[in-house]
Amino acid sequence: MSVIVWWLVTVVLVAVHSASARVVELDWEVEYKFWWPDCKEGIVMAINDQFPGPTIDAVAGDIVIIHLTNKLSTEGVVIHWHGIRQRGTPWSDGAAGVTQCPINPGETFTYNFTVDKPGTHFYHGHYGMQRSAGLYGMMIVRAPKEKLRYDGEFNLLLSDWWHQSTHSQELALSSSPMRWIGEPQSLLINGRGQFNCSQAAYLSNEGKRQCTFRKNDQCAPETLRVRPNKVYRLRIASTTALASLNLAVEGHKLEVVEADGNYVKPFTVDDIDIYSGETYSVLLRTHSSPTKKHFISVGVRGRKPNTTQALTVLSYVDAPESARPTIPPPVTPRWDDYNRSISFSNKFFAAKEYPPPPEKSDEQLYLLNTQNLIDGHTKWAINNVSLSVTATPYIGAIRYGLSSLSYLKSPAKELVESYDITKPPVNPTTTKSSGIYKFPMGIVVDVVLQNANVLKGKISEIHPWHLHGHDFWVLGYGDGKFRPGVDEKKYNLKNPPLRNTVALYPFGWTALRFVTDNPGVWFFHCHIEPHLHMGMGVVFAEGVDRIAKMDIPDEVLGCGLTRKWLMNRGRH
Amino acid sequence: MSVIVWWLVTVVLVAVHSASARVVELDWEVEYKFWWPDCKEGIVMAINDQFPGPTIDAVAGDIVIIHLTNKLSTEGVVIHWHGIRQRGTPWSDGAAGVTQCPINPGETFTYNFTVDKPGTHFYHGHYGMQRSAGLYGMMIVRAPKEKLRYDGEFNLLLSDWWHQSTHSQELALSSSPMRWIGEPQSLLINGRGQFNCSQAAYLSNEGKRQCTFRKNDQCAPETLRVRPNKVYRLRIASTTALASLNLAVEGHKLEVVEADGNYVKPFTVDDIDIYSGETYSVLLRTHSSPTKKHFISVGVRGRKPNTTQALTVLSYVDAPESARPTIPPPVTPRWDDYNRSISFSNKFFAAKEYPPPPEKSDEQLYLLNTQNLIDGHTKWAINNVSLSVTATPYIGAIRYGLSSLSYLKSPAKELVESYDITKPPVNPTTTKSSGIYKFPMGIVVDVVLQNANVLKGKISEIHPWHLHGHDFWVLGYGDGKFRPGVDEKKYNLKNPPLRNTVALYPFGWTALRFVTDNPGVWFFHCHIEPHLHMGMGVVFAEGVDRIAKMDIPDEVLGCGLTRKWLMNRGRH
Repeated sequence: MSVIVWWLVTVVLVAVHSASARVVELDWEVEYKFWWPDCKEGIVMAINDQFPGPTIDAVAGDIVIIHLTNKLSTEGVVIHWHGIRQRGTPWSDGAAGVTQCPINPGETFTYNFTVDKPGTHFYHGHYGMQRSAGLYGMMIVRAPKEKLRYDGEFNLLLSDWWHQSTHSQELALSSSPMRWIGEPQSLLINGRGQFNCSQAAYLSNEGKRQCTFRKNDQCAPETLRVRPNKVYRLRIASTTALASLNLAVEGHKLEVVEADGNYVKPFTVDDIDIYSGETYSVLLRTHSSPTKKHFISVGVRGRKPNTTQALTVLSYVDAPESARPTIPPPVTPRWDDYNRSISFSNKFFAAKEYPPPPEKSDEQLYLLNTQNLIDGHTKWAINNVSLSVTATPYIGAIRYGLSSLSYLKSPAKELVESYDITKPPVNPTTTKSSGIYKFPMGIVVDVVLQNANVLKGKISEIHPWHLHGHDFWVLGYGDGKFRPGVDEKKYNLKNPPLRNTVALYPFGWTALRFVTDNPGVWFFHCHIEPHLHMGMGVVFAEGVDRIAKMDIPDEVLGCGLTRKWLMNRGRH
Repeated sequence: MSVIVWWLVTVVLVAVHSASARVVELDWEVEYKFWWPDCKEGIVMAINDQFPGPTIDAVAGDIVIIHLTNKLSTEGVVIHWHGIRQRGTPWSDGAAGVTQCPINPGETFTYNFTVDKPGTHFYHGHYGMQRSAGLYGMMIVRAPKEKLRYDGEFNLLLSDWWHQSTHSQELALSSSPMRWIGEPQSLLINGRGQFNCSQAAYLSNEGKRQCTFRKNDQCAPETLRVRPNKVYRLRIASTTALASLNLAVEGHKLEVVEADGNYVKPFTVDDIDIYSGETYSVLLRTHSSPTKKHFISVGVRGRKPNTTQALTVLSYVDAPESARPTIPPPVTPRWDDYNRSISFSNKFFAAKEYPPPPEKSDEQLYLLNTQNLIDGHTKWAINNVSLSVTATPYIGAIRYGLSSLSYLKSPAKELVESYDITKPPVNPTTTKSSGIYKFPMGIVVDVVLQNANVLKGKISEIHPWHLHGHDFWVLGYGDGKFRPGVDEKKYNLKNPPLRNTVALYPFGWTALRFVTDNPGVWFFHCHIEPHLHMGMGVVFAEGVDRIAKMDIPDEVLGCGLTRKWLMNRGRH
């Protein structure tokens, strides 16, 4: 099938209902606030005095307009609409330095985009480490006619929280020698966690203090109130800065039905793994026992945990206010049982209505990630290049043909073939660059993410990679080094799941495929905030000739060289 | 004498030596750094990895060019050249929102100005509370032919330091209810203080730990090494965020010879008061006793102190390395002995070569400061207006005639006459505004600063007011409410000192006079950082018609409405 046909099929599938398109228009102000996310006071980035930010609730086909006013004192700000493909509006993607200039303090910028297909999404800051500072919220795009059947729904936005300020964290990570930020102090469910106490202390021998909450406590968990014998949709998103998570509901199975805004072939599990940048919908069937309470637990996997589980309660409506769950929270699976993790990833297949991906790719890009040193600073690098985004947004540099732009080439064959991923880099130094990758329109691209050993020890870390502007097919995961000509044969080309975020496992590879059908400049990066801060990302310029003709609003480009260009436009 | 003559006299006095003008050109990078300013780790804003920033050493008539690169992650930055009048280059004054846009992360802005007369100055951040975060350094402008006679000189840059981050302080001050930041944890001399220990512990019974320093400790004091029977010039500047200070050198008198870059009639004292924004030169004559060491002390006055004196040592060159001062540091005069403070202020007269000020003023501006509440937020207000600087720099709004601008009128007679400064405000609410005051060129302006009672209690605070772009004559200080038609008669019109910063004492008034001979937009504000953050300032637009014809570099105005204007210039 040709690429054109793929595109047509997609258009039909997304059930565009532009005839009835509404406009969801919101005025938002971003500001720091003192807050008690985990029963200890800290500072969060709030939107309209709320943390997490307000939930956007739209229907596929709606136009979302957000007038975002920066009320910070000295910091710029942007918001990325994670999972929204921004077809036709790549400048609304909200990635600072890539698709727009940061919004200056005291100024208002308007995001204007169409939410073209249903899904569970979220939004978050994408400048410095502002996501980690709490700039995030849920974004639900409903199907005009939902194919799933359920009686109610809940949003669970998961995040991790540090007591060290993100400003201090940024500096620590950039220092020479680098100071690692450590594991989070708390995990938060809908912005609520408990650092100093445990909801489940009465059930355990841990000796931790039992939590007591007062009304309106900002750290008091939101109870999920359910009726017996019903089906509930839990919309789950992880915006963690670092932690890979596992979620379970004591005594209840979870049927996974959606991932990153795409329906999947339903499967039932006791718990789900969720990496930063991922979203899921799971269906939960309630029991007939009406008076029970059950713990919902969120724990750390993938890194040696040093953070207590986050808990909230699933409460049957008839349960007395004073009743407590009688069974301890589910135990999070062992953090380093990667076989279990990969086995979970391998359960994902596209729902049956999705067509298979194109059979062949036109281009293959190999992305080897390594940990390196530049002048004593620890950096992450892709193909020996650590990303340092320019002060001039790429989309503007392309639009106006500015010289600030440089393009990277696919890595030399030697790098692909000779690099030993099981050992620390032989030559640990690398270069910083703002260079990006370029793709023509209408081709099929395969990307192989290749993991490797870090700078010291026998260690390789998990990296959830997130692509802006696209869903991609996850063709397969493998252990060790990718073998060109061999491993492609094991790709799932029949019903691979469509995702926008995918895990790369320690010492392994992950292969994905996408079609260059969305002109724009798209960030593709590890969604772990400190890793991105340390250079772990690449940028894809898609359809450069199309971008050069785009009608990009001036206010997107009011910084760096594009500002200069636009100010002198009359004189060109 | 006419205004023109005043100006000519000034020009002659400043001994312009443009024939031999050098260019002092510097590349600076601003970045956060972990640092130990007071023997406890914190985060400072460093320039080229130095804290305080590098000292600028120039000669009157030199052109100073600073290429300032913002290496911060998400914050804008500017630098104000405190005491430099910026004649002909008002856009180089470095006041964010007033004379320029903040410099975005990753961008470089070039300051280019002439240092037209000799003096002891400093520079500092002027965006948010970045001065308090440590963005400051000394700036010495030497006379081509110095009239003072001395054998050596030292710079003493005084500041105060908090352990709470300035980001957190900004939020605390802006919160409702306001959270006061409290007294500083430490005072710093040239960026060095001691929080956990005392250099003088061995001389006292305080029980504080004696300091031990290792080589290169960032908090180790800089010893002033002197020879016997010599004269040293101490160049002292206070860039404190809050503290009013008193400096003394044990066993030595100080002859005050310069204030804010203007020579004064020399007078000799045991100690000097110095308010934030002020600079002094004092001459210190060393004794014949060659082997002694003496403490130099800096303590808090004007607010009930809760901060240990900062100390450093004056060491005669022959004193053994291991020797220590044998006499305890000078005791700082009582903090609330305001008569002593005013008596010190009244010792200042212009050096004899300065002509007297114009005899009469053409315009009088009365500035009553009050503490108020706006929607639960504590603010400082001037004539019932709390300043909120716009995102569009005033200088640009005037240059291009933009509608963002509004002008304030002199206060109604009723406000001046009926306000009871001895009581909390009757109506504590007030308004926020970005309005500014406007003056024509070539007139003589008198400003009467009027202090009053704060929101609660029977309290009035000290406020050191600093004017950009000008020196002014300090005509007098008075207790209580200024009485028009009466108090003018006590003005010193013979030899008032020229200053750029002046103290306003509790429940009192201060009168000053200046000539509108420098077209530009000039901040006039309380130099206490939290007070300015809470709205305690006004802006003077001087020669609006001249500004409208200025050739302001585009890069000054790349934000807010001026950015928009410049981007659309070709279409106007």
